Amino acid sequence: MRTQKVSGAQLQSFRKLTLKKYRLQYGRFIAEGAHLVTEALRSPWNVEAILATEAFSRKGDFSPIIESAGKKSVPVFSATAAQMNSLSDTVASPGIVAIVSTAVPLTSQSLLSLPDQALVVALDSVSDPGNVGTIIRTCDWFGVDALILGGESVEVFNPKVVRSAMGSLFHLPFLHEKDLSSLVNSCLRLGWTVCTTLPRGGNAVGDIPQGRTMVVFGNESRGVSREFRANASLSIPRFGNAESLNVAVSCGIILSEFRRRG
Amino acid sequence: MRTQKVSGAQLQSFRKLTLKKYRLQYGRFIAEGAHLVTEALRSPWNVEAILATEAFSRKGDFSPIIESAGKKSVPVFSATAAQMNSLSDTVASPGIVAIVSTAVPLTSQSLLSLPDQALVVALDSVSDPGNVGTIIRTCDWFGVDALILGGESVEVFNPKVVRSAMGSLFHLPFLHEKDLSSLVNSCLRLGWTVCTTLPRGGNAVGDIPQGRTMVVFGNESRGVSREFRANASLSIPRFGNAESLNVAVSCGIILSEFRRRG
Repeated sequence: MRTQKVSGAQLQSFRKLTLKKYRLQYGRFIAEGAHLVTEALRSPWNVEAILATEAFSRKGDFSPIIESAGKKSVPVFSATAAQMNSLSDTVASPGIVAIVSTAVPLTSQSLLSLPDQALVVALDSVSDPGNVGTIIRTCDWFGVDALILGGESVEVFNPKVVRSAMGSLFHLPFLHEKDLSSLVNSCLRLGWTVCTTLPRGGNAVGDIPQGRTMVVFGNESRGVSREFRANASLSIPRFGNAESLNVAVSCGIILSEFRRRG
Repeated sequence: MRTQKVSGAQLQSFRKLTLKKYRLQYGRFIAEGAHLVTEALRSPWNVEAILATEAFSRKGDFSPIIESAGKKSVPVFSATAAQMNSLSDTVASPGIVAIVSTAVPLTSQSLLSLPDQALVVALDSVSDPGNVGTIIRTCDWFGVDALILGGESVEVFNPKVVRSAMGSLFHLPFLHEKDLSSLVNSCLRLGWTVCTTLPRGGNAVGDIPQGRTMVVFGNESRGVSREFRANASLSIPRFGNAESLNVAVSCGIILSEFRRRG
């Protein structure tokens, strides 16, 4: 098939999305590689355009992508390797990207009206993109209802987050919320259980009352901010000598226990 | 205090350890930063030398390190910032490193004679250093008896592994074993339970018999090799849409369940 060459103006508007400022302003980001482009096309998110290099368009992966894009009337442009590299976060661009925007962004209002058994994960300034991407993937595995990226947490559109989330980003309602403390207070007023996670001294998941629950995971070095007026705390029992667990590993263990409990 | 300047010959021998080949040949590696140097000095591992820059030696962190080094008769050398950068894996060297070697390396023989309730983790060609480092930290948290780096798994002395293991490396007996399949067979002959981990269709930890147990985690994309004659398999139930869990997250969830079971 023949695709139109990307114009200089289009490329310039896409290139803006290599900067966090514009990603957050437009709610739009770059998904790189055949797997993520395919997942984006399958999801309810808006795929605004696809760019592929000549080399990529000769690969077997290209025709199913072209077909899905056609069904959704997504324009496909061709780009040179140099143009593609100018959009890429990686050393060697995989040769295909999609420009994607959120379908229906989650609001604090819709979060607060989640149903009775809702399970929500909130991050308090989790700063490593690999950790945030892995947490998105883990929340998707355990069917978490929403993820809140609170305080100074890295944004979900960060290219390293998008990459390590491996498509799970497209399945998970999320909210960026600088003022996590106010949101926590609103949840508490509505009768939610808000659990902070502590290295030691907290409860087990079995001790947490049933009902709408938010679990807050803290920054990699500082942990959870002291300002939260949470009404529960959780810890994972230690059997060896490590000082702490990685935040994504803790998240997986705690979510697994919530789901075991039923 | 006055420290001797590092000689050109010493620096050259330390610089060899930036290469995997020499790290494996000598069983010796570079631990970077005040936290790791402190942990190494506290551990039974052999700290052969410490190098610090002039700038680092003016920091508060330096005097407790000097004191511990003195007690263990570890030589401390001064190095220029450029010399230090030539040893460093990071963009900006933290200004202090230790040259460390394993205290008592684990052998297949000592692994096979672990006591009755031993819990061992084996990695089948896990290739991402961040994942291996996080797994070391997780195994240390849960008091795992040994870690086997099987097949083409990244080596524990890799600088990114050492960094993400955050000192837990010094607490965990480990073994590099190219031929994981033979080791698995030896374990099976001795009556161990060897569990492979599968994305779906495996058992729950509660179904695994008590006794000496090895849990095998596979490569990030290919999973566990088909060649293993394991006698059990484990899966983590899925409640959402993600295709898979990160290997370090899976490891955390499964170890947590083994420890819950007691």
